[in-house]
Amino acid sequence: MTISITPIPGVPSIQPGNDLAALLLSSLDAAGLTLGAGDIVVVCQKVVSKAEGRIVDLNSVTPSTFARTLAAQTTGKDPRIVEVVLRETRRIVRMDRGHLITETGPGWICANAGVDESNSLAPHAVVLLPLDPDASAQRLRAAFERRARGGVAVLITDTFGRPWREGLVDFAIGVAGMNGILDLRGQHDLNGRELHHTVMAQADALAAAAGLVMRKGDGIPAALVRGYDFTPAEGSGRHLIRAAEFDLFR
Amino acid sequence: MTISITPIPGVPSIQPGNDLAALLLSSLDAAGLTLGAGDIVVVCQKVVSKAEGRIVDLNSVTPSTFARTLAAQTTGKDPRIVEVVLRETRRIVRMDRGHLITETGPGWICANAGVDESNSLAPHAVVLLPLDPDASAQRLRAAFERRARGGVAVLITDTFGRPWREGLVDFAIGVAGMNGILDLRGQHDLNGRELHHTVMAQADALAAAAGLVMRKGDGIPAALVRGYDFTPAEGSGRHLIRAAEFDLFR
Repeated sequence: MTISITPIPGVPSIQPGNDLAALLLSSLDAAGLTLGAGDIVVVCQKVVSKAEGRIVDLNSVTPSTFARTLAAQTTGKDPRIVEVVLRETRRIVRMDRGHLITETGPGWICANAGVDESNSLAPHAVVLLPLDPDASAQRLRAAFERRARGGVAVLITDTFGRPWREGLVDFAIGVAGMNGILDLRGQHDLNGRELHHTVMAQADALAAAAGLVMRKGDGIPAALVRGYDFTPAEGSGRHLIRAAEFDLFR
Repeated sequence: MTISITPIPGVPSIQPGNDLAALLLSSLDAAGLTLGAGDIVVVCQKVVSKAEGRIVDLNSVTPSTFARTLAAQTTGKDPRIVEVVLRETRRIVRMDRGHLITETGPGWICANAGVDESNSLAPHAVVLLPLDPDASAQRLRAAFERRARGGVAVLITDTFGRPWREGLVDFAIGVAGMNGILDLRGQHDLNGRELHHTVMAQADALAAAAGLVMRKGDGIPAALVRGYDFTPAEGSGRHLIRAAEFDLFR
């Protein structure tokens, strides 16, 4: 079955307090896209964070001594941004060669705790990751399912770098309506051999796919994925985070 | 513009020496899919490796002492498989908790040097990664472009785990006809701010997307991606490998 990935155009610039679900539904309507059961709506983290007011005015931030030290030694960034990054961080994973890779409170490992300087509301503002992207995804899902009259999945995505690989790819940080992981263990391959290592990160693959139509700078903050066969489930982006005790790279 | 991802069904079981391009073209024909300029054909590594004879009969392998030690201490695998993994390895990145993460000769970092036990031709056979997946991709591209009468891109993909994240996702190891990386630096966001960190791994995102229709065990070894706007280029999967001196996680 063919999977289609359609950008959702015409989403206005999001302001704190906006009803993001309503704005996305309006944009879907305007684009002639009618939500139905089995659809997956992928929404970039930035518009979710903006709608939820996860914005910090740098003029309100006094950097700590450590933030000033890191800014000078590592990233070359505004020390106030480094201070905001540290406030979102529970562990520094690497701080070398100009990069600050941190583990956030909820557990994502990414550059600068996901604090975003681009595309924000004002020159002195930075955008944080949503506090609870699963809850954000569930809220959107509830609104979308009322419209679709059936099961819809929602993914909240962010753009991360990867060890060993050049370039960025989108990942799922919030998941609702489907499992983030597709566990095929116990099934068999064409030779009848059991599939041992086939726990697929389907939400990350869908996030990466949706990222193909949500290029930075294009102003496309959401995409509609159709034709992907999934089993409806509550879901959580946290299932995609490897527990520290099983992780070889922290 | 909507991107579509269509599985290419009906590809027969591949044997060493098969003309993979011809078999894929036959399957496309049988499915009523006519290749055209701008199409991207994504092919899983396993069928490329099989066609190229990258298969090792374990009965021909005598494990070294180190392979026996690793097998006993780390992976619990057949020592002959560990021997094959070591022959494909230039550096062991991690060897803990039952996992053997290695850097292959060409530079991919993945579990067991990409040596694959499932879906192989015989119970005693394992499949290696292609020797030069870019060259494999270029050969397929040449055959596909003759048919398409225009530019076609080809990606050879494999399924890898990721640090910090649960589950597997498909990555591009061979690339022909497009750049693996999409460099947006110098462009500006909607607020006129320059995009600093937007070097997208478009070939990996396309690989992940195609993986959604190439689930393990389904016998779908290839997919056709349409509607993705790319600039034709020679391309190389090696551009997606971060050089060791810039990598914080080796």
